[in-house]
Amino acid sequence: MKLYDFAAFPNPARVRIALHEKGATEHTQFINVDVPGGEHQSDAFRAINPSATVPVLELDCGTHISECTAITEYIDNAFDGPSLTGSTAKQRAIVHMMQRRAEQYVMDAVGNYFHHATDGLGADIEQYQNAEWGNRQKSIAENGLQYFNDLLSKNKFVAGENFSMADITLFAGLGFAGFAKIDIPTEYTHLLDWQQRIAARPSVAALGG
Amino acid sequence: MKLYDFAAFPNPARVRIALHEKGATEHTQFINVDVPGGEHQSDAFRAINPSATVPVLELDCGTHISECTAITEYIDNAFDGPSLTGSTAKQRAIVHMMQRRAEQYVMDAVGNYFHHATDGLGADIEQYQNAEWGNRQKSIAENGLQYFNDLLSKNKFVAGENFSMADITLFAGLGFAGFAKIDIPTEYTHLLDWQQRIAARPSVAALGG
Repeated sequence: MKLYDFAAFPNPARVRIALHEKGATEHTQFINVDVPGGEHQSDAFRAINPSATVPVLELDCGTHISECTAITEYIDNAFDGPSLTGSTAKQRAIVHMMQRRAEQYVMDAVGNYFHHATDGLGADIEQYQNAEWGNRQKSIAENGLQYFNDLLSKNKFVAGENFSMADITLFAGLGFAGFAKIDIPTEYTHLLDWQQRIAARPSVAALGG
Repeated sequence: MKLYDFAAFPNPARVRIALHEKGATEHTQFINVDVPGGEHQSDAFRAINPSATVPVLELDCGTHISECTAITEYIDNAFDGPSLTGSTAKQRAIVHMMQRRAEQYVMDAVGNYFHHATDGLGADIEQYQNAEWGNRQKSIAENGLQYFNDLLSKNKFVAGENFSMADITLFAGLGFAGFAKIDIPTEYTHLLDWQQRIAARPSVAALGG
């Protein structure tokens, strides 16, 4: 299979971590999409993903899968190894709930702040900006950091006892937050300890940088 | 189990349809949350869902699950009957991808238009509005209707040959669009035909209204 992505960016990192966790990296051909140059907004790329976002997974049958949750569901079910999406009905529900919270409270909130209330990727790429809304999203991200610090004072991982895709999403979201200069307050020790534990996983260390 | 919701609203409808499709309605106690009165924004309700949204499913063990995708994963895996979330790795990926598109392109776009660029649920509930962003979301919803009309000229259901949670989400999103006076253009015959087919399902007809 092929992964269309841009290695340094946060959503591509989510899928690269998932691939490594499932031992699927070596089965994947990586195809660089020049996101800073706007290639993801071209007609050719929109034909494989009308949402104009990376990453996109191309299966061997030619089907294109976009959206990190959907791509991770594919990888998790197609390859062996510990589950990233939960094994029981209850686990699956908690993983998917926490996946959405990690997106809404951190990853997407940070992304919306970055793309709307800062220069983002520059005027050629950021064709619509709404700074007021972007700054509102920054405060959602700041509340999100507090929520997850509280959660991780009780939970070993975001969705409970086991590492899951929700950990991957939060970890990549925190990386994006740092890039966008939304720092984790030093008193959020539960969140910072968890971040350090996740950073030490081989799948994350393999990202480099 | 218990479902905290408000029957007439679009996201609660998604879970009620899923429950009926899986024969789980009779195993569910419905608890009304006074959303027009702001009960979902109370501290008591935020304790079971910090996102302050309905619906929320309370499992018999006391765990609370929010987010329609997560709730539907629970129902789909805990009860018998045809799958709403896909049975193979590829099907699951396509269902989850289309679920996110039905949310982003229609359900959430309409909701953001309604809550930001119209009176929404009134000034007491809509404590932050950004009309410019809301109107931008309206145009996303209009593009979304076109996307799904094109898709349904090729597909029997949103995610392919089988009914899935992505159909439920799009159907509820179209209902919300009608309520918010975003009409489906009469030339979108594939979308309108599909809407009529879905409306005739017992799970949908049982909603009333």
